[in-house]
Amino acid sequence: MTAGAAPTREVRLNGDVLLSQLQQLGEIGRDHVVGGRTRIALTDDEKAGRDQVLAWMRELELDVGVDQIGNIFGTLRAAPGAESLRPLMIGSHIDTVKNAGALDGCYGVLAGLAVVRAFREAGQLPSRPVTVAAFTNEEGVRYQPDMMGSLVCAGGLSIESALDTIGTDGTRLGDELKRIGYAGDIVPATVIPHEYLELHIEQGPILEAEDILIGVVENLQGISWQKITVQGSANHAGTTPMRLRHDAGWVAASVITFLRGLAVSSGTTLATVGCLKFEPDLINVIPRRSTFTVDLRDPDEQRLQLAEQRLRDHLAALEEQEGVKITSEQLVRFEPVVFDTGLASEIEASARRLGFSHRRMTSGAGHDAQMIARVAPSAMIFVPSRGGVSHNPREHTDDGELISGAQVLLDVVLRRLALK
Amino acid sequence: MTAGAAPTREVRLNGDVLLSQLQQLGEIGRDHVVGGRTRIALTDDEKAGRDQVLAWMRELELDVGVDQIGNIFGTLRAAPGAESLRPLMIGSHIDTVKNAGALDGCYGVLAGLAVVRAFREAGQLPSRPVTVAAFTNEEGVRYQPDMMGSLVCAGGLSIESALDTIGTDGTRLGDELKRIGYAGDIVPATVIPHEYLELHIEQGPILEAEDILIGVVENLQGISWQKITVQGSANHAGTTPMRLRHDAGWVAASVITFLRGLAVSSGTTLATVGCLKFEPDLINVIPRRSTFTVDLRDPDEQRLQLAEQRLRDHLAALEEQEGVKITSEQLVRFEPVVFDTGLASEIEASARRLGFSHRRMTSGAGHDAQMIARVAPSAMIFVPSRGGVSHNPREHTDDGELISGAQVLLDVVLRRLALK
Repeated sequence: MTAGAAPTREVRLNGDVLLSQLQQLGEIGRDHVVGGRTRIALTDDEKAGRDQVLAWMRELELDVGVDQIGNIFGTLRAAPGAESLRPLMIGSHIDTVKNAGALDGCYGVLAGLAVVRAFREAGQLPSRPVTVAAFTNEEGVRYQPDMMGSLVCAGGLSIESALDTIGTDGTRLGDELKRIGYAGDIVPATVIPHEYLELHIEQGPILEAEDILIGVVENLQGISWQKITVQGSANHAGTTPMRLRHDAGWVAASVITFLRGLAVSSGTTLATVGCLKFEPDLINVIPRRSTFTVDLRDPDEQRLQLAEQRLRDHLAALEEQEGVKITSEQLVRFEPVVFDTGLASEIEASARRLGFSHRRMTSGAGHDAQMIARVAPSAMIFVPSRGGVSHNPREHTDDGELISGAQVLLDVVLRRLALK
Repeated sequence: MTAGAAPTREVRLNGDVLLSQLQQLGEIGRDHVVGGRTRIALTDDEKAGRDQVLAWMRELELDVGVDQIGNIFGTLRAAPGAESLRPLMIGSHIDTVKNAGALDGCYGVLAGLAVVRAFREAGQLPSRPVTVAAFTNEEGVRYQPDMMGSLVCAGGLSIESALDTIGTDGTRLGDELKRIGYAGDIVPATVIPHEYLELHIEQGPILEAEDILIGVVENLQGISWQKITVQGSANHAGTTPMRLRHDAGWVAASVITFLRGLAVSSGTTLATVGCLKFEPDLINVIPRRSTFTVDLRDPDEQRLQLAEQRLRDHLAALEEQEGVKITSEQLVRFEPVVFDTGLASEIEASARRLGFSHRRMTSGAGHDAQMIARVAPSAMIFVPSRGGVSHNPREHTDDGELISGAQVLLDVVLRRLALK
């Protein structure tokens, strides 16, 4: 398995250290009143999290580097002769939303450290470098867009634009990066991995609902976010006959029920209206204006476009029928990502070999893996999220499940290194 | 027509004075920035409005009195021998909502003054007293319930409870009434008119839409207001399959579309959802909770109850089907009011005699007439509202229409006094 001497000890996962590090990292930025922890990108608390991860990388004697957008890379050198091969990368992020759980992102980064620790404890060197990556600003709470660090790595956003991003608090990203001491020298586009793996909690209810331990993530949904505004007429609720109304509230409601029908009948499309506002918002006044968001997702680009088209057609029909004016603004649009089939099969094979229940699945949420997939074969491994809850102090995965997920990751890494 | 000497001059409406007084009263509490005027009950601006109306009553040499809840009565004495008969009352209110039009309420009070002015200018005395009433706090903006002054008059609310009402600004109604100098001596329940007439703008679009000048208001809708709360589960929009959702937002939308169907199929019920709120109100989170209001109206109590029952059944079915918890709180419930058929026929006959287009109709809004109808034969006359707009600076009725409405009122008064 290594290019050097015959293995003396088996490469095994140390689950205790992984759980302990998850717990320790989860203490940084803790909110003991509301619960959870808050390490929004490039804040002092997030810097403290970065410092901790860097310290653990140094304990493992990794080659540590930081790129110009602040992505942290810790690399386990390969056996002699293989040092210059492109690395197998294991990554995720350690920034959080407000009052987050301890697992989203952190699990993937610390499981990467657990993989290199397994090599260290076995006294072995891999057949190509193994890099653990912690990408900057995956959550996009303070600076838009989200998944920014991996997007820059993949060449999807220039480093200049990224550094010039102005945050919700008016700060410039580049200035904050420098302030916390994480404006590195590495040119992001030079960090192209040979392959990329990301282990993550599902952040959805499917694995738990089906009592399955491992999700083999073969693709990632495309996302279409729109903001829709309906302009009707405010009139008295008691004096305006139904036939003379231009009810912006009813139009919004009718779109919401239409979208449920669209999603259910398609079988793959997800449709959600999460934000909705009525104006003037008075009990006895027909809403003059309604504003709402539409979140459409589908793993297939054609079907996502079809859903968008059906929504457009429905809005046009409503304009005509209800005598209202409807405008729509596209907020976000990502095409679906199909992960590498070879890597997905490898994950499936590892799960099978370890005797873990598993299923192929689609990621509903966005992840750094979708960006790196633009430049390298990539795939993801999911473990269950209790109740599908994430971005919340109640986010939870059982310890045993966390360890099982990391075991699959390690097994996949060992197989990929043996094969190449 | 009078109990005294033969009429020397015809009793005719002075339209110019009516329009001029509407304009002058409309200047009190003017907001030159946002538009409209604001004379919320028992504020300094409303006191200024009261003072103006009282001054005009005194100019007409009416017997002026104020009751314990602040209702203002200006009475034109009857011809000798008829002074102690119960009065024919013409009333409405002069308090307003925020940034109101100049007509809602004021038109009815000032048209009442125009009627007594017609007697004065003709040098005649009526065959029974004619009282012009301006009722306290019809709008209910600061103190609940609305239509309070007329409700107290009709014995529907004790004077003690009314005076003890605490306003949205924490003030006690009785204290504010005293502060502005309108805590009178008259016991409200002693002011029972022989008959009651109220002239008002429609505050709805029907007369304008049908190009009809006079609305003969034969009844007033019952009102049922509820606040409904749906408790579902917040989950990630991208990871939660449609079948595993408990979407409080979708449930609200489905109720809104259900209510439209209910109203349209009934033919008489009106249903409006004016307020709606989602929580947490995030684009990629399925709403955990939705809160919305339901405004149901029908001129028939049985049909209103049927609508309430159908809504209850629908909510129960949704709870079961969607796995959500739904609670409902009744905010307001008024039974429909049927106005006096004799008075309605008299209004219709006057409109016909004057050559004005007219139709029987239902009042969708609440009015003081619905309270006085509990203790005396009552009816209302409507004139068109442009675009159905009211409670808004854009509230408008053409001058000619305002004068025509007052002419019908005067004609009805003359007929009723001649007949009795």
